[in-house]
Amino acid sequence: MKPSHIEHIGIAVPNLDEAIRYWEDVMGLECYNIEEVVDQKVKTAFFKIGEVKIELLEPTSPESTIAKFIENNGGKGGMHHIAFAVENTDQALADAEAKGIRLIDKTSRGGAEGLKIGFLHPKSTFAVLTELCSK
Amino acid sequence: MKPSHIEHIGIAVPNLDEAIRYWEDVMGLECYNIEEVVDQKVKTAFFKIGEVKIELLEPTSPESTIAKFIENNGGKGGMHHIAFAVENTDQALADAEAKGIRLIDKTSRGGAEGLKIGFLHPKSTFAVLTELCSK
Repeated sequence: MKPSHIEHIGIAVPNLDEAIRYWEDVMGLECYNIEEVVDQKVKTAFFKIGEVKIELLEPTSPESTIAKFIENNGGKGGMHHIAFAVENTDQALADAEAKGIRLIDKTSRGGAEGLKIGFLHPKSTFAVLTELCSK
Repeated sequence: MKPSHIEHIGIAVPNLDEAIRYWEDVMGLECYNIEEVVDQKVKTAFFKIGEVKIELLEPTSPESTIAKFIENNGGKGGMHHIAFAVENTDQALADAEAKGIRLIDKTSRGGAEGLKIGFLHPKSTFAVLTELCSK
């Protein structure tokens, strides 16, 4: 695997509107896209800073993994995952598995912004939930 | 405040050598610098991916804030902070405070790689420990 750059940093938030206001007013970034990802039960907001995106994730259902993350974090949200841009998500997942890494996704699936995404399990990545994504 | 890019992502690790091996062998990045930051009681390892650095932090003392973070996280480490590159850290801290943000550092101090750094308090930043840094 040879990722080219960090595609985005995923941040769980209990309330998307309040968090967008913070990232715009204090951090000086502009929200350029709000998108619901139905099968992940989240509403997302995107900001761009240099080559990296900040992706805020608000759960749309208590069954969302983001809802559980926020619950486990005392209701507070926080940094949730790092997504690395790779040439081919399926190949990168296979490369990682061949090196003994536990996968959450054996093959890629559709994510926000039309990307092909797949996750490595944090038990294998020193507790950093790691997403791989390609166009 | 108008940060130009993400300078680095800080990741707490219980064991620097094991984590370096993972980031090199599996993620395909190269560790280009290992540096002890005595006053923060950490040993750091740096990787570059695009314009962003990954900074691994291993505590060198049980009194280190990184040691406490790892302890609170079941001994596991994980994503610790995001550092944003700004023109002038002291000015950016003052801007944030003027907007009602609680600061950890009222003025900048010296960090790894010779940067001037300052932290915003996660209570004001939707639980994302936020570092500002400038050269």
